[in-house]
Amino acid sequence: MTRANHRVTSLDVARAAGVSQSAVSRSFTAGASVAPETRTRVLAAASALGYRPNILARSLVSRTSGLVGIVMGHLTNPFYPAVLEAFGAALRRVDKRMLLIPVPDGDVDQVIGEVLQHQVDGIVVASATLSSALAEECARQGRPVVLFNRTTTAPTVATVSCDNDGAGRLVARTLVAAGHRRLLYVAGTPDSSTNVERERGFRAEAAALGAAVRVVAGLYRYDTAFAAVTAALTQPPDAVFAANDVMGCATIDAARRHGLAVPEDLSVIAMDDGPMAAWAGYDLTVIRQPVTDMVAAAVDLLLAAGRGEAPAHIRLPGTLTERGSARL
Amino acid sequence: MTRANHRVTSLDVARAAGVSQSAVSRSFTAGASVAPETRTRVLAAASALGYRPNILARSLVSRTSGLVGIVMGHLTNPFYPAVLEAFGAALRRVDKRMLLIPVPDGDVDQVIGEVLQHQVDGIVVASATLSSALAEECARQGRPVVLFNRTTTAPTVATVSCDNDGAGRLVARTLVAAGHRRLLYVAGTPDSSTNVERERGFRAEAAALGAAVRVVAGLYRYDTAFAAVTAALTQPPDAVFAANDVMGCATIDAARRHGLAVPEDLSVIAMDDGPMAAWAGYDLTVIRQPVTDMVAAAVDLLLAAGRGEAPAHIRLPGTLTERGSARL
Repeated sequence: MTRANHRVTSLDVARAAGVSQSAVSRSFTAGASVAPETRTRVLAAASALGYRPNILARSLVSRTSGLVGIVMGHLTNPFYPAVLEAFGAALRRVDKRMLLIPVPDGDVDQVIGEVLQHQVDGIVVASATLSSALAEECARQGRPVVLFNRTTTAPTVATVSCDNDGAGRLVARTLVAAGHRRLLYVAGTPDSSTNVERERGFRAEAAALGAAVRVVAGLYRYDTAFAAVTAALTQPPDAVFAANDVMGCATIDAARRHGLAVPEDLSVIAMDDGPMAAWAGYDLTVIRQPVTDMVAAAVDLLLAAGRGEAPAHIRLPGTLTERGSARL
Repeated sequence: MTRANHRVTSLDVARAAGVSQSAVSRSFTAGASVAPETRTRVLAAASALGYRPNILARSLVSRTSGLVGIVMGHLTNPFYPAVLEAFGAALRRVDKRMLLIPVPDGDVDQVIGEVLQHQVDGIVVASATLSSALAEECARQGRPVVLFNRTTTAPTVATVSCDNDGAGRLVARTLVAAGHRRLLYVAGTPDSSTNVERERGFRAEAAALGAAVRVVAGLYRYDTAFAAVTAALTQPPDAVFAANDVMGCATIDAARRHGLAVPEDLSVIAMDDGPMAAWAGYDLTVIRQPVTDMVAAAVDLLLAAGRGEAPAHIRLPGTLTERGSARL
């Protein structure tokens, strides 16, 4: 029996390595428990025998690759690294891996061809938009698309987001109940659904409660928000709702530079709860997005689409996390 | 001519879509310029004809998959999202994509089987360590490993890092030249080569120049560093060197809470130059690591290993970026 006329199996590897077949399987399985020395022995035996766990060949037959394309803008926004870690863990539980395509300029249409070329089992588009035409084409090719942290009116695309309208309403109610009347909204990028919905909810609820809302453009960036808030402080508001935590930090820095104390002179609440929101220098009161649940929902929607189910739209509520930046 | 006995080519797709063959190719190529409507038409025609750009079949023949495994700990350290974006851009230039495996607990040995299963062309291990035995096994299987931002004594593993010893020396020289004599080093995780080398260089140069160095354990984390620096401020130093920027921010927050002004009462210099280092609240003087060059070097080393070249060890110098947190 030579290698040429015998396809090497995991049993051959197990015998050569002096371990169980299950240990061979676990050595090649995501997150499976196996002693490092065992794994080393298995990989060495597999290499010597020419054994390859046959994921690529399996891909050609089953048309599943075990890969999910994650197309992500704004990686350096601290919200998204936490999202990536959560996707890594959630996809591993269903034995899939992330093909990560960063799109710093947000132009997803430009990269969709390269994602499809790798025969991904599905595509998550986070913090960026995909044209409806391309999303439909992906779905027709059996590569379902889930928009993460964005909503859309395209019928073929599943979406998962925080209830951003509800979050805006919650912040307005909370601030007005605490006696704040002159409110400032520091807006994110104007064409993002997250910003549109947060602003809409915040303004609608504030108006219903008789509070005034001014809006400045922060574009989800520190420097833009810092400049916009600094300009707005010539007529200081009572309270600020910043559409993300980075702009919440910028608001606090701008207020201090202007000689205002936070929260004594100005209350600040922001969306998102990245690491620096909890830092002593900011101690930011936030609406926390349920990242783990949102990611789990996105993975469920991909699997559902793989079973032919119709795209759904999931909205999960954010929760108010009180720290020291707002008088409530 | 039916589909069954004719392998669909890109020319068939071009005819059906009414575009050039080059437009078909560009529609499936990373970063290639093609109008969105053209791409949509090409993908629709490809789908109707059953055309697939044949990357998986090609993988089985050539044993290259176009995938590079990126195994990364500490994604939420702001240094690493910038590294990921740089790898995305550098790998795209050589027509490869990132298979991202986050390892929040840093145990790379546990996940190496799943990386190999996807027939990656190479593996980058960033901010984590891989046992020498497994690294050698990967190399023997033709899956070269490059350690990024870590060094090792294993002969089969290529490494790319900043000159961390030199960075420590540069900070000590700079602080002593400005008149600081009582220095504090806020250390990263004790077993990381980055921390060992930064501390060694900083202490050696300070000792040579007659300055005293105390060391506290910050573990590269904000909360640990904040507590350690707060405790150390009972006997305030003149100046602090923090082994990363997150701990530099923690040092500034701890000093202010203690009633010290930065830089008037305390100079602070940190490694890394993440987004918040430039924020008005910190204005942190830093040693900037040359991320783009380090990533380009790592990709070069992977390609060199693919040509059978011996592993090399690249160290690139960091540069002092003066902002407002140190009297220099």
